[in-house]
Amino acid sequence: MIISLDKLAEVTKSTIKGDGSLQLTGVASLENAIEGEISFVSNPKYKTLLNTTIASAVILSPSLAEDYAGNALINDDPYLTFAKVVREFHAVEKQSASIHPSAVIADTAEIGKLVTIGANSVIGEGVVLGDNVHIYPNVSIYSDTKIGANSIIHSGAVIGADGFGFAPQKDKSWYKILQVGNVVIGEDVEIGASTTIDRAALGSTIIGNGVKIDNQIQIGHNVKIGDHSIFAAGTLIAGSTTIGKYCQVAGAVAIAGHLTIVDNVIITGKSMVIKSISKAGVYSSGIAADENKKWRRNAIRFSQLDDMAKTIKKLETKLKQFEEK
Amino acid sequence: MIISLDKLAEVTKSTIKGDGSLQLTGVASLENAIEGEISFVSNPKYKTLLNTTIASAVILSPSLAEDYAGNALINDDPYLTFAKVVREFHAVEKQSASIHPSAVIADTAEIGKLVTIGANSVIGEGVVLGDNVHIYPNVSIYSDTKIGANSIIHSGAVIGADGFGFAPQKDKSWYKILQVGNVVIGEDVEIGASTTIDRAALGSTIIGNGVKIDNQIQIGHNVKIGDHSIFAAGTLIAGSTTIGKYCQVAGAVAIAGHLTIVDNVIITGKSMVIKSISKAGVYSSGIAADENKKWRRNAIRFSQLDDMAKTIKKLETKLKQFEEK
Amino acid sequence: MIISLDKLAEVTKSTIKGDGSLQLTGVASLENAIEGEISFVSNPKYKTLLNTTIASAVILSPSLAEDYAGNALINDDPYLTFAKVVREFHAVEKQSASIHPSAVIADTAEIGKLVTIGANSVIGEGVVLGDNVHIYPNVSIYSDTKIGANSIIHSGAVIGADGFGFAPQKDKSWYKILQVGNVVIGEDVEIGASTTIDRAALGSTIIGNGVKIDNQIQIGHNVKIGDHSIFAAGTLIAGSTTIGKYCQVAGAVAIAGHLTIVDNVIITGKSMVIKSISKAGVYSSGIAADENKKWRRNAIRFSQLDDMAKTIKKLETKLKQFEEK
Repeated sequence: MIISLDKLAEVTKSTIKGDGSLQLTGVASLENAIEGEISFVSNPKYKTLLNTTIASAVILSPSLAEDYAGNALINDDPYLTFAKVVREFHAVEKQSASIHPSAVIADTAEIGKLVTIGANSVIGEGVVLGDNVHIYPNVSIYSDTKIGANSIIHSGAVIGADGFGFAPQKDKSWYKILQVGNVVIGEDVEIGASTTIDRAALGSTIIGNGVKIDNQIQIGHNVKIGDHSIFAAGTLIAGSTTIGKYCQVAGAVAIAGHLTIVDNVIITGKSMVIKSISKAGVYSSGIAADENKKWRRNAIRFSQLDDMAKTIKKLETKLKQFEEK
Repeated sequence: MIISLDKLAEVTKSTIKGDGSLQLTGVASLENAIEGEISFVSNPKYKTLLNTTIASAVILSPSLAEDYAGNALINDDPYLTFAKVVREFHAVEKQSASIHPSAVIADTAEIGKLVTIGANSVIGEGVVLGDNVHIYPNVSIYSDTKIGANSIIHSGAVIGADGFGFAPQKDKSWYKILQVGNVVIGEDVEIGASTTIDRAALGSTIIGNGVKIDNQIQIGHNVKIGDHSIFAAGTLIAGSTTIGKYCQVAGAVAIAGHLTIVDNVIITGKSMVIKSISKAGVYSSGIAADENKKWRRNAIRFSQLDDMAKTIKKLETKLKQFEEK
Repeated sequence: MIISLDKLAEVTKSTIKGDGSLQLTGVASLENAIEGEISFVSNPKYKTLLNTTIASAVILSPSLAEDYAGNALINDDPYLTFAKVVREFHAVEKQSASIHPSAVIADTAEIGKLVTIGANSVIGEGVVLGDNVHIYPNVSIYSDTKIGANSIIHSGAVIGADGFGFAPQKDKSWYKILQVGNVVIGEDVEIGASTTIDRAALGSTIIGNGVKIDNQIQIGHNVKIGDHSIFAAGTLIAGSTTIGKYCQVAGAVAIAGHLTIVDNVIITGKSMVIKSISKAGVYSSGIAADENKKWRRNAIRFSQLDDMAKTIKKLETKLKQFEEK
């Protein structure tokens, strides 16, 4: 696969600095690129690597390109341009759609055009898969799940298992609430490896269009997620919570049940969200790791925090009395 | 499936307000119910929805029923009643027990009566499955695991993989401790999707009767869990910890190893448990997410907490000296 | 399987106290051992169990052996000795290598000698498995993954799924960055159940030799992990982070992306690591669970911490002014 710099500029709507006829053989990071390859700088903090890279061309913003003497593909959005260049070099490698003979597909499932289903995946009764859906191997799709066109489901994902619903009984045992709803996933959704999305108790658990969900994520029953929201690995969303559009939730976040989070909310890593969020913005919790000895001293103080606050209050009052004398 | 309100009252031991001959077609939430369906209010904070619902009947507590003019099924426990009503409408849909031909079952496994094993599940040597056990697709049960009657295991679950045991060697490499125990699961247990329960190093990892375990949970080797305890998604229990009966552990909790937690302990979401708990009650840790700017200021102060406490102490001493003068 | 105490001493390079001709039938914990079995004390806090055990012999450190009247296998490292004794009794039970007929292996995969592949595991195009690799059932290995000799991969693990990489577009939708790298795993690595290791965007995600990874762990694209580091369950490592050799990371830890952590770092459970660590040592964060009422009072104070610190500062200034008068 050889692509000229001119061709990449045309495809990505970029301008060129240097030799447009340059023949490129692939894309790689600044450190790993060999001669003939194109690389990129999307984060200015890595720009010093431009001094040492032997990449034959680099994707750069206009300002970084000014100071760079080599061949460059110049675009206001170098990261998106890089993503498109990767696709130019690699998209042709995509295998044509196919359903592996070891996949188990219920008779009543409806499978769209050009769907790929990997080995040993299991597609339940009444499942609907839109056109061009790609299911990797060892995926489990429970009955009545609907997945929109162009969506991708990675290995180990389980879509539509029972939500976690039990009513306590007088003898303190738990009575299972049959989970008779389903999961409805929009178009262009990606769901990571070992992620689980539970079916609704009643009605539907809903994942909007263009939502991107990383690995090891748990989405409880009756959760609703707006279009184009994105979730990093290990995040948990408890039942019946509604999340808006264009939200960005980092990894290891836990979001309690029955909350409402509006559009355009960003939640940083390992946060604990236990109240609804009614205003767009960035939200955080969590304490960064520190040297163990220092942490021990501070963590013990946390358990005395209310006492500390009361002591401060008393000191303030006393000092005021002194001042008044 | 049409069921009269009279019939539902009989099955759930409830009383009726309104028309007992009403023919009901299904159960749905207050917002989604259409005419002909029955709904419920289990949490009084949702009672305002009673003004707008078009459900033909509602399951209510006696006090809520007083103010409601429509048809009602009245019970002291509306949530449990709802659970039973769902089962009236849907339990008949349960498919009869069957073992999918693609499941792989070791010759030495003992399979009870009316057991269901889903496609591509793998049942190891010496496994014992009690009567009416339901194993969903793509489950992995390692050798010698025992699962009691009526238990349910969801897709992606892995029961009986090796516990995480390694002895450090002088060259700082790790020597694997063969995990030669097993997992023993009681009756009426439910285990969620992608949950992992490790086999004991020696002896057994034990899950009591009626225990309910959500998705993405990790239970380490030699853990023992008492009857009817319940665990929400993403919780981790490290090796050799013993948890009592009737405990309720919320999601994203991490419980350290070699601890003992008594009966009737409730642990709230995202808590970190690093000491044994010897008294029933509610336990918590974690800080709720806040606006990022505010959080940053407070989180920095956390790392100064011990210094703050010492300064307060000094100020107290000084003020005392002033007072004494 | 019967082994004499003399034989165990020879194999584990230990000395004997008592009757070396003793015939032992197995290994068990101090509480569960029956007559004829050997047990061990690796943690002195369990030494009181020596008074009640009916084990016929015990593996002990020299100092503990002094006070013990029964038969003992004495070694400076009782835990490693125990691990070796377990292997004496149980290693013979290991089944010979075999590839289950239901495993799906791409034509272009290279499988080493004495490799075991469990039922319904799926091995992608261009995968290379070294000699004596053991893949348990229902594992998914994506294309081009390389796994070194003697490594063990447990059920539900997914190796080589796409890293989580998306470029934002002007319409706020996400453009998928094709993940065209792979995963390279060293020799003697163990990977737990339902653990996920993502393929690199470009280049390789690298797991060093002798690394031990527990269950439910997520390792992002382009992460690099040094030899003999060990990770407990539920830990998440975000993309492009580099971790040194001989590190020990406890469970439920979240490590942010693009960090560098040097060799010999220990991170305690549930920590949040958001800065690089340049010095070997022990690092921690997190607050231990407390009684809910006490926690509520302290957690509210956390949100006032910056204000508290400022008040303390003011009080200090005022007191100084008093003193100067």
